[in-house]
Amino acid sequence: MTEPSRDLLETFENPNPDRDYVIETICPEFTSVCPKTGQPDYGTLTIAYIPDEVCFELKSLKMYLQEYRNHGAFYESVTNKILDDLVAVTQPRSMEIRAEFTPRGGIRTNVIVSYPDENWDE
Amino acid sequence: MTEPSRDLLETFENPNPDRDYVIETICPEFTSVCPKTGQPDYGTLTIAYIPDEVCFELKSLKMYLQEYRNHGAFYESVTNKILDDLVAVTQPRSMEIRAEFTPRGGIRTNVIVSYPDENWDE
Amino acid sequence: MTEPSRDLLETFENPNPDRDYVIETICPEFTSVCPKTGQPDYGTLTIAYIPDEVCFELKSLKMYLQEYRNHGAFYESVTNKILDDLVAVTQPRSMEIRAEFTPRGGIRTNVIVSYPDENWDE
Amino acid sequence: MTEPSRDLLETFENPNPDRDYVIETICPEFTSVCPKTGQPDYGTLTIAYIPDEVCFELKSLKMYLQEYRNHGAFYESVTNKILDDLVAVTQPRSMEIRAEFTPRGGIRTNVIVSYPDENWDE
Amino acid sequence: MTEPSRDLLETFENPNPDRDYVIETICPEFTSVCPKTGQPDYGTLTIAYIPDEVCFELKSLKMYLQEYRNHGAFYESVTNKILDDLVAVTQPRSMEIRAEFTPRGGIRTNVIVSYPDENWDE
Amino acid sequence: MTEPSRDLLETFENPNPDRDYVIETICPEFTSVCPKTGQPDYGTLTIAYIPDEVCFELKSLKMYLQEYRNHGAFYESVTNKILDDLVAVTQPRSMEIRAEFTPRGGIRTNVIVSYPDENWDE
Amino acid sequence: MTEPSRDLLETFENPNPDRDYVIETICPEFTSVCPKTGQPDYGTLTIAYIPDEVCFELKSLKMYLQEYRNHGAFYESVTNKILDDLVAVTQPRSMEIRAEFTPRGGIRTNVIVSYPDENWDE
Amino acid sequence: MTEPSRDLLETFENPNPDRDYVIETICPEFTSVCPKTGQPDYGTLTIAYIPDEVCFELKSLKMYLQEYRNHGAFYESVTNKILDDLVAVTQPRSMEIRAEFTPRGGIRTNVIVSYPDENWDE
Amino acid sequence: MTEPSRDLLETFENPNPDRDYVIETICPEFTSVCPKTGQPDYGTLTIAYIPDEVCFELKSLKMYLQEYRNHGAFYESVTNKILDDLVAVTQPRSMEIRAEFTPRGGIRTNVIVSYPDENWDE
Amino acid sequence: MTEPSRDLLETFENPNPDRDYVIETICPEFTSVCPKTGQPDYGTLTIAYIPDEVCFELKSLKMYLQEYRNHGAFYESVTNKILDDLVAVTQPRSMEIRAEFTPRGGIRTNVIVSYPDENWDE
Repeated sequence: MTEPSRDLLETFENPNPDRDYVIETICPEFTSVCPKTGQPDYGTLTIAYIPDEVCFELKSLKMYLQEYRNHGAFYESVTNKILDDLVAVTQPRSMEIRAEFTPRGGIRTNVIVSYPDENWDE
Repeated sequence: MTEPSRDLLETFENPNPDRDYVIETICPEFTSVCPKTGQPDYGTLTIAYIPDEVCFELKSLKMYLQEYRNHGAFYESVTNKILDDLVAVTQPRSMEIRAEFTPRGGIRTNVIVSYPDENWDE
Repeated sequence: MTEPSRDLLETFENPNPDRDYVIETICPEFTSVCPKTGQPDYGTLTIAYIPDEVCFELKSLKMYLQEYRNHGAFYESVTNKILDDLVAVTQPRSMEIRAEFTPRGGIRTNVIVSYPDENWDE
Repeated sequence: MTEPSRDLLETFENPNPDRDYVIETICPEFTSVCPKTGQPDYGTLTIAYIPDEVCFELKSLKMYLQEYRNHGAFYESVTNKILDDLVAVTQPRSMEIRAEFTPRGGIRTNVIVSYPDENWDE
Repeated sequence: MTEPSRDLLETFENPNPDRDYVIETICPEFTSVCPKTGQPDYGTLTIAYIPDEVCFELKSLKMYLQEYRNHGAFYESVTNKILDDLVAVTQPRSMEIRAEFTPRGGIRTNVIVSYPDENWDE
Repeated sequence: MTEPSRDLLETFENPNPDRDYVIETICPEFTSVCPKTGQPDYGTLTIAYIPDEVCFELKSLKMYLQEYRNHGAFYESVTNKILDDLVAVTQPRSMEIRAEFTPRGGIRTNVIVSYPDENWDE
Repeated sequence: MTEPSRDLLETFENPNPDRDYVIETICPEFTSVCPKTGQPDYGTLTIAYIPDEVCFELKSLKMYLQEYRNHGAFYESVTNKILDDLVAVTQPRSMEIRAEFTPRGGIRTNVIVSYPDENWDE
Repeated sequence: MTEPSRDLLETFENPNPDRDYVIETICPEFTSVCPKTGQPDYGTLTIAYIPDEVCFELKSLKMYLQEYRNHGAFYESVTNKILDDLVAVTQPRSMEIRAEFTPRGGIRTNVIVSYPDENWDE
Repeated sequence: MTEPSRDLLETFENPNPDRDYVIETICPEFTSVCPKTGQPDYGTLTIAYIPDEVCFELKSLKMYLQEYRNHGAFYESVTNKILDDLVAVTQPRSMEIRAEFTPRGGIRTNVIVSYPDENWDE
Repeated sequence: MTEPSRDLLETFENPNPDRDYVIETICPEFTSVCPKTGQPDYGTLTIAYIPDEVCFELKSLKMYLQEYRNHGAFYESVTNKILDDLVAVTQPRSMEIRAEFTPRGGIRTNVIVSYPDENWDE
């Protein structure tokens, strides 16, 4: 099984590069497969970023995320990889991804990653 | 197709220019047209600002926003343009616009812009 | 692509066949594929039935529903087929399935089927 | 200005005509224009029906409803006309439309129509 | 002080008199005055009816309800009088008014009246 | 300790005795004392009735309910006694009381009584 | 492992046996053990009944339900057994138990049983 | 028409002047009149302050706010005037008023004022 | 009438005095009496503190708060006194009490006190 | 009775040790036993941490938490012990646990602990 490829992600030119502003994208239909059990996992991704020169295109994001549908990976790896891919393609001023997965065994897990490294002391 | 014109926006004198205070205006009936597909988009705009010498008049804001009803533009451009127009007309001490669009293809997007440029590091 | 097979469904003996009672099972992680666009659809199934001699086993229901993950079918067909399969395997005194799909193009659809045919005049 | 035409509505064959079942379609992005003031109105349509030989196709419903975007009509007329058009095209066993409009002047209005004529004494 | 007059209520022709259908109107900004204490009362009126030959016009309803703003009357009388006035002017096939008042002294009251007299045994 | 007395309850003339209509009164601040432990109990009473010749007056209801503040009685007795007292004083066409008590030991209890005796088979 | 014993259940005399009324008891802290996996299950029981000569005492109900804490049984058996025990001890005019279990494997199950056998055709 | 007078506002001695603490008062039944259209406006006021030597008395606040019932004034003026009056009468260490008005023309407005002038840069 | 006595409050040794941590206790069943009208007031207390050497015991807190049941005192005094008593008995590193009272005359009030004096400028 | 042992907790290698990110785990099915009364307590644990070299494995966390099912301990001790165990096993960069227990005697308690000691002055 091949890795979901960041080559699927398309961008368009930021219409206002002179201004710092935030784009939030919420994807409640994310699904991947648990590499240990082969069972599907479900979750909601919230991606917030300040674009620099380009923004990612929504339809290409959707196609990219569908690559995870039959892909086996742990929560922590998936979330970090999506951040790495989106940062590589859009080179944003900053980006944060919050992934909220549905319960398994009565336990629910969220993973929050950001670029560049935030100071979590607050 | 002509651009929505900021000339539609009317103002009235700020009754308390000596005091910094906030006016929030929420417009849940915003609609524009996707320039790629020609399909309508829907969203809610929340405009918060500290007026300086003038405030914008609500009825004229409504007429101005209705100009977008059959106007084709991307989320990011629309939100930035509305901020630019409102800032040009009211010259506020500060202003923020949050635009929340309804889902397309299972994905939902918000755009948040502000004047003057905020420090998003917080 | 083969059809999801009702042979996956397992049953266990109804512990109280002398009494009419209701079992409700809610599956919020149902996903199938649109046969026209190839895009995934998502939804929640609610299955309510009065068992006769057997009940369906939950783990086997889960495996059966996962067969739809990469299966192309319209909302109406999927819901009717699941009812047909569950009725064939458990021969319940009655059963109703309510399928609620997530929005596409700003439009949301639910399909409600029941066995035996209800009188919808109420 | 021409009337929204029912010719836009397409249908597909009911996959289970032997069974009475319900399809609910919710359209939260309906908008038309008030014929008196020229101002846009907004609302949510909920269409529930038992199909007979055909179901209406969702994308064509969307295109049909978009015809009201710049069309002037009162709440009561709009709702009745949509019912008439959908009944004419799909010849359902029964259909109900609930239209919920957003507030105007601090007053909110809903219109509920059904086919065939229900007994509202309940 | 004069009574709020039903002469303020205007009607328009029912566009679909051949069909029994329901119009619901919700007025969350109703206010009157307690005749005992002189203090204002606040509430929400929900009016649901099946029109016969005419519907009431919303703007005139608003003006009529504003007549109660400085009018002293008890909850039960107000609700019954509004029903009497609306029935007199529109001659509906049936009508129900639900009035929900805000708490006074830690106690909240609703009044529900209908025309023609319903059988409340259900 | 004396019993809360129905003599505290005052009535006023029903302004519309010709019509069957419903008055709902919600009292979220009811409190009494558990006769076994001496600890306070808390709950919400919802009283719905169709008045005949008289309605109960709200302020007197409040004073009457406050008599239970330091009165020891079980949930079931309290609810039945309040119904008996309100029926005796107002002679309504029908009345229902729903008492919802706050949790004790992780268990929550509601008591629902009505006059005249309803047919609970529905 | 012994069965939870109905001998733990205590009753008290119904204070109003002349009247049909309903007592609802909600127990959100029910837990038992899955006999197949040995893992704990969690759920909420809602018990509604019309008492005849006696009511069950709440503290004894709590102790009885705690017997299931380390007891292995399937959802359907547990719910039916609790109904059988409560009916045996209180001989109610009627009783219904609704058991809502927390999700397992992304699937949630409710069981609804009643005495005497209801007509579920409605 | 005379202005609502701050003379109606009464105060009582702060029971703990040695400690900075916050009193929040929420008034959901505020209503005034639009000076342009003569139509009533409705809103909720939330007043939060740290008292110094005196607190305002709630009943007198209620009487003071009722003076706006038939008084014509714009949102921004009303909110600033109420702050000025309350500050003049109670001389608090600090105070903030948030006024949330109900929608007009599909647009909702809030006004937030504070004393002494806050630094809104945060 | 005697004052509620802090002598009722019992404490137990903080099991982790080496670590700063927070204990939040929420009491939704607080009731006292208005000294002016003699009518009961109701509210919810939320107590949050960082214990030093001791924690307060919950059952004794409950008994202490029940002393206010028939005690007449204003909102501001009650909240400050409870803070004083709890601080005196537990000598916490810090403590905050938020008291939220139910509406009276359409107006709702909260009182927030803290120890040691917080800097409310934030 | 033996203490729940941290030896049950298993870990896996942090897939992105170069980046500070947060993992939140929510466990709504926690239950232990009150050491004084022998009655079960119920609650929800929310664990948030920034992993360093390892993350804890969810299934082993579940088994570890089940050890508390028949274990007697006070709220404050339980929460502190779970933090101590998770910190010892995973050596995180930081960790916070929020434990929310269900009401007892009308009073609800939360305990919030963190590592390393936070500055709660904010």
